[in-house]
Amino acid sequence: MSQSSTRDSLKTIGEFGLIRQLKQQWSTSSPWIVKGIGDDAAILKTRQGQQLLISTDVFIEGVHFDLASQAPKDVGWRAGVANLSDVAAMGGSPLYLLVSMAVPVRIPPKNIRELYRGLKDACAPCHVELIGGDTSSSPSHMFLSLTIVGSVRANRALTRHGAEVGDHIYVTGTVGDSNAGLRILQTRSNNLRRFSPSTAEKFLIRRHVRPTPRIRIGRLLVDRKLAHAAIDLSDGLSSDVGHVCEESQVGVEIRGKALPLSSQLRAFARQNNLDPMELALQGGEDYELLFTAPAKHHQKVLNVSRQTKVPISCIGEIKPKTFGQQLELPEGRKQKLAKKSFNHFGNR
Amino acid sequence: MSQSSTRDSLKTIGEFGLIRQLKQQWSTSSPWIVKGIGDDAAILKTRQGQQLLISTDVFIEGVHFDLASQAPKDVGWRAGVANLSDVAAMGGSPLYLLVSMAVPVRIPPKNIRELYRGLKDACAPCHVELIGGDTSSSPSHMFLSLTIVGSVRANRALTRHGAEVGDHIYVTGTVGDSNAGLRILQTRSNNLRRFSPSTAEKFLIRRHVRPTPRIRIGRLLVDRKLAHAAIDLSDGLSSDVGHVCEESQVGVEIRGKALPLSSQLRAFARQNNLDPMELALQGGEDYELLFTAPAKHHQKVLNVSRQTKVPISCIGEIKPKTFGQQLELPEGRKQKLAKKSFNHFGNR
Repeated sequence: MSQSSTRDSLKTIGEFGLIRQLKQQWSTSSPWIVKGIGDDAAILKTRQGQQLLISTDVFIEGVHFDLASQAPKDVGWRAGVANLSDVAAMGGSPLYLLVSMAVPVRIPPKNIRELYRGLKDACAPCHVELIGGDTSSSPSHMFLSLTIVGSVRANRALTRHGAEVGDHIYVTGTVGDSNAGLRILQTRSNNLRRFSPSTAEKFLIRRHVRPTPRIRIGRLLVDRKLAHAAIDLSDGLSSDVGHVCEESQVGVEIRGKALPLSSQLRAFARQNNLDPMELALQGGEDYELLFTAPAKHHQKVLNVSRQTKVPISCIGEIKPKTFGQQLELPEGRKQKLAKKSFNHFGNR
Repeated sequence: MSQSSTRDSLKTIGEFGLIRQLKQQWSTSSPWIVKGIGDDAAILKTRQGQQLLISTDVFIEGVHFDLASQAPKDVGWRAGVANLSDVAAMGGSPLYLLVSMAVPVRIPPKNIRELYRGLKDACAPCHVELIGGDTSSSPSHMFLSLTIVGSVRANRALTRHGAEVGDHIYVTGTVGDSNAGLRILQTRSNNLRRFSPSTAEKFLIRRHVRPTPRIRIGRLLVDRKLAHAAIDLSDGLSSDVGHVCEESQVGVEIRGKALPLSSQLRAFARQNNLDPMELALQGGEDYELLFTAPAKHHQKVLNVSRQTKVPISCIGEIKPKTFGQQLELPEGRKQKLAKKSFNHFGNR
């Protein structure tokens, strides 16, 4: 190894050295930022007619990501998209990001810079600026915490409540791909044989490691007042539609046949004897939007799809609360919408 | 143990159970919060004539705190104050907090609730509201990440730049107490003998575990346009005044004799053969404010002290950059202002 790379350890460059490097990597220029990184707090101008959106997410090595099998750039990208997607789901514009990390010394600074690069790449299309953060060592695992700040037209944010009986339920893109992609990656890391993924598998892996936040669609829904409620698909479609139902105090009927499944997902399911509909309903981290809109807006919703070149599919209808949360199977039979139970603590 | 306490484990109550408990513990009511916890992002109204302040800090078990020797309530309090103090140093009002955590299953939920309670208690006097967060398991250590949102009069925030040659340098309260308190706690945890601290030691420990953010003083400095630059004492006085000098492109002369030292700190230093001035200059986490103000405002600064009943001491003067950063020792000799080097990565 070259001299410069041996010197490139966290022990040598130190906390301030790392911060300096990361600052240089991602400089800020927005006229709305009075003061970015480098003081006790960032100072931001507020925008008339806008409300503020703030959301935060943690990503823990060994829980949310695995640096042994995942490229740091992909980890950064996915963490960034998880945050951006929260703002997209409210119909807002992401503006600023704060990034905090605790890093064990075993991780080379190069990997941290690459993780940052992935984060930055995910944020670049929407011009999100880095305005703060904190860096520390970690005695064991790597810890990442992101806080995103966005803005939305005053009193127009899309929330999980507001869904009304009779609303159509829509999802953007295709669902279940990320779940399938993750399964392929897990098989690969458990399998020492040389791994040469098919084109379909490559597509699904890409959908997992490089999801797209649906920011433009969220904004168009707000601008055109089309949606009653929205959420992004992070826990899994059945869980996420459940959150909307609980917050809106309504029931739901999902039509299994109407779920937008990619041909690649269908092929993967066939090959692995899996139910593609199950993958779509239970699989998380698609970062597609799910929203409800009155039936009369159906054509306008399709216009948003045409304009953004992203498929938007009607997958069911909001029902009264007494109806419960049901799934219509492709053969016509109805059953309770099953949810994967999420318990980060119970799983280990 | 009672049945209810055996049931009270993270494995049993799960992630959503924990979030529910914490939400109940700290409900929000501000009319500025359109939507608090429970959606993809919090929605906040913006305030005319105000700018936004945002800051984030991480606290890592084994680096910043030790749950074996520290009460969870104290850990929460200190983490809260570290954040509040960042807003105080800008002359702003802290408004909202986001709390993210990754918790290993070995930690009883009771301890997490107590940590939250300490955090809440620290935030209560300034009516800070909890608006979001994220919770995860951790494979090893506990991670805590706080993001504070505040507001400040537009174009009036106090930053680290802006100090001018000839400015007086002031600090609030007394300095070095927290450092001494930490040393006492460390001795205690290394010493199996029964520990019965003296009244002076109790004072110093309290100053370490229960620091006070100087929010009101920061706001008065802004309202009365008294200060040119400000910072809170977190790294240690000599390092923190160094940050102001670097950002403001100036030099400084600190008068050792003028440092405000508590009688308890002096007694502790005497008993332990330590230099109290060193403890004050190098010791971090006092969370007092350091600010610079033109000499003509001296009386007005003293009025702030009288009004808030917090001592404010002039400890030196801003000099041209070429002067460097110097310390005048009590006997009159001058020397370079030594700084403790901070490198979280190098220390382990």
